[in-house]
Amino acid sequence: MSEPLRIALAGLGTVGGGVIRLIETNADLIARRAERRIEIVAVAARDRSKDRGVDLSRYAWEDDMTAMAARPDVDVVVELVGGSDGPALTLARNTLAAGKDLVTANKAMIAHHGLELAALAEKADAALKFEAAVAGGIPVIKSLKEGMAANDIKRVYGILNGTCNYILSTMEDTGRDFADVLAEAQAKGYAEADPTFDIDGIDAAHKLAILSSVAFGTRMDFKSVTTRGIRRLLAADIAQADVLGYYIRLIGMADTEVDASGQRRLVQRVQPHLVHRDHPLAHVDGATNAVVAEGNFVGRLLFQGAGAGDGPTASAVVADLIDIARGDIGAPFSIPVAELGEAPAAETGDRIGSAYIRFNVADRPGALAEITAAMRDAGVSIESLIQKGTPGLAAGDADTVLVHMVTHDGPESAIGRAMALLCDSPCLTEPPVVLPILDE
Amino acid sequence: MSEPLRIALAGLGTVGGGVIRLIETNADLIARRAERRIEIVAVAARDRSKDRGVDLSRYAWEDDMTAMAARPDVDVVVELVGGSDGPALTLARNTLAAGKDLVTANKAMIAHHGLELAALAEKADAALKFEAAVAGGIPVIKSLKEGMAANDIKRVYGILNGTCNYILSTMEDTGRDFADVLAEAQAKGYAEADPTFDIDGIDAAHKLAILSSVAFGTRMDFKSVTTRGIRRLLAADIAQADVLGYYIRLIGMADTEVDASGQRRLVQRVQPHLVHRDHPLAHVDGATNAVVAEGNFVGRLLFQGAGAGDGPTASAVVADLIDIARGDIGAPFSIPVAELGEAPAAETGDRIGSAYIRFNVADRPGALAEITAAMRDAGVSIESLIQKGTPGLAAGDADTVLVHMVTHDGPESAIGRAMALLCDSPCLTEPPVVLPILDE
Repeated sequence: MSEPLRIALAGLGTVGGGVIRLIETNADLIARRAERRIEIVAVAARDRSKDRGVDLSRYAWEDDMTAMAARPDVDVVVELVGGSDGPALTLARNTLAAGKDLVTANKAMIAHHGLELAALAEKADAALKFEAAVAGGIPVIKSLKEGMAANDIKRVYGILNGTCNYILSTMEDTGRDFADVLAEAQAKGYAEADPTFDIDGIDAAHKLAILSSVAFGTRMDFKSVTTRGIRRLLAADIAQADVLGYYIRLIGMADTEVDASGQRRLVQRVQPHLVHRDHPLAHVDGATNAVVAEGNFVGRLLFQGAGAGDGPTASAVVADLIDIARGDIGAPFSIPVAELGEAPAAETGDRIGSAYIRFNVADRPGALAEITAAMRDAGVSIESLIQKGTPGLAAGDADTVLVHMVTHDGPESAIGRAMALLCDSPCLTEPPVVLPILDE
Repeated sequence: MSEPLRIALAGLGTVGGGVIRLIETNADLIARRAERRIEIVAVAARDRSKDRGVDLSRYAWEDDMTAMAARPDVDVVVELVGGSDGPALTLARNTLAAGKDLVTANKAMIAHHGLELAALAEKADAALKFEAAVAGGIPVIKSLKEGMAANDIKRVYGILNGTCNYILSTMEDTGRDFADVLAEAQAKGYAEADPTFDIDGIDAAHKLAILSSVAFGTRMDFKSVTTRGIRRLLAADIAQADVLGYYIRLIGMADTEVDASGQRRLVQRVQPHLVHRDHPLAHVDGATNAVVAEGNFVGRLLFQGAGAGDGPTASAVVADLIDIARGDIGAPFSIPVAELGEAPAAETGDRIGSAYIRFNVADRPGALAEITAAMRDAGVSIESLIQKGTPGLAAGDADTVLVHMVTHDGPESAIGRAMALLCDSPCLTEPPVVLPILDE
């Protein structure tokens, strides 16, 4: 058996503790699969005195975590500190500049600085691996880079944020409204005290930008991800979707199209969708994540599992370490950084699809006429329109009734025009909620 | 860019044609991901004159496919001939003995001779890869070996035969009986003229033996897989399962247990199960395959996609070729052959579970009393018992009525005892059908 792979671990939160427990618990089987032992040499975190339920006395303690990169007894640095910049980024840069391998679970850092870090890694012939940054324990980065490597991947999408999925499936099961379920999730520790990153879709957008670069072999472009979260969803939306045969899920969607000049363009969006109950994503409940990828030979693959938590995330981190121990380094984004393609954002107006729209309508004569006239004038064809009985009951406002609409397939630009026509309407008490319907 | 990887292709059926089309269509992106081109050098098949819809004139033709292993211009042989022995096995042995890499989609050969071939491969420091042998385009071998490498895998199971799943989901959708749906599937080319391997579960058993060796790091043991197919299922079973909230799926199940002496033992079975409609496998329809694997840190992962067909299978074959091109060889069964553990078959009598049992009962007084007495005497606790109205209607025999039973959780041995008590009973017109209920 070869020499052990010696690692330094920065960040001893939930995931860091999980990585230590995993490496200790499964040490022998890891050594068999990696054909080397994986040994933790040094650890670092902000607070040395905190009790983490694991025995750290066997490992050297580094007060300055960025110094880990310089330790001669370390082959790989595992960065579990978090944050797109700050000490995590400094540590990452130092590690790769020192020619050591880096494994990270940090989606924000990879989404913002992944290309710079990948270039550093290539220059140093070091590994940069981030399986744990997307969809927790699901080996989706590996599956896209290697398992689907023979395919031109056309589209990749999925449920990328467990907190949102937990909230949506709880709203579904209980009929309760968003704020109420969020508060409960926070009390139980399923949602952060500041839930913005999760519920506004930013966390899913980080993951989506990473997935699309790996899947399409294009330069990561986090800025172009349009992001809408789940704050504005009502129990009434979920109930209405259910009547229509759909569930509501926050979907990160990356799609490719080729424009008139032959240039490949990307659509990258995070937003709640209506998902038909026959679609495999409809049955993904609770904090589970799932990713669908479509290749030109393999067709549609689905990968599903726990999207967060210490065990699943540690599983992905250590899988990366085993790959490194086996000498499987590979290009971080599936092909070398210099060969990653440009893929500007697509014009989305011509994309064809159907949508669900919910209007909060002032309860007075002529409101429906105004809405339907705007649809007609914008060229939106209505498949169904439902106005539910009692004002205020669902909307929480006695002067408001909810109107739910489903459109026929049509260009997105038409819905945009209709919304523009209605934007100053005194009929509407707040802007409409537009949710695309996921195609089969 | 390095030298091209030069391959020889034996077998030009559906999958062989797919591999050629894939390598030609996606040549550039494969070269980017593999950092080398993959080039077909030579091909072989039984019949040279057959039109396969691909242009073979660019490739050398070998009349004797086993001679491909000796060609100095070939790095990798792709074996798509099929059959556990015969020319496929000769070619595989010759290839590895010559120190060349072997990629195969041949589940029967791997299930029967995989350990011998893996030992040959290790001796020659050559690759033996068989992603396409299990679950078509789904990268499940890679996911078990690498994506879940950090985990002690406790259980792996799934829907491994697309033909059976197509038949069962069509029976479900149409209410038609097995023979009728099978005949239609044969007419449409979804089932073979001789469907034995598929519908009797042998194909799934080959795949299960391979999955369990890779997942558990144990020596493959195809002989110990107990196998029951779907021939005896009736539309009435599917209808009754539906009433109870279940779908019927043919499941290959590999589970581990540790006996009193600390020896790990395996349960490997292919048989139809009742799957609760909340379980992700319940919604796997048509020819789709899906595999669930449970690890001690990652929890439950699900992998789903097309289980057969030229495109998906070619996708898996070429993914293996790209791994080889990248220098990622690895142990065929996740750890070296010499280190694979022994795992004798478990005694299953103490396993706890519930089951659905269907009795074909002669329509005469006392039959139910005899069945229920046998259950009581054997210690089987009955959760529900349904005798459906009209004799003959569902059973196709005017003197027979169907009795459907669901048991409470209990040891398997109790059900075995009850069946033994009833085996000579004149009350039963044929042996009962016992289907385990998959736990959540």
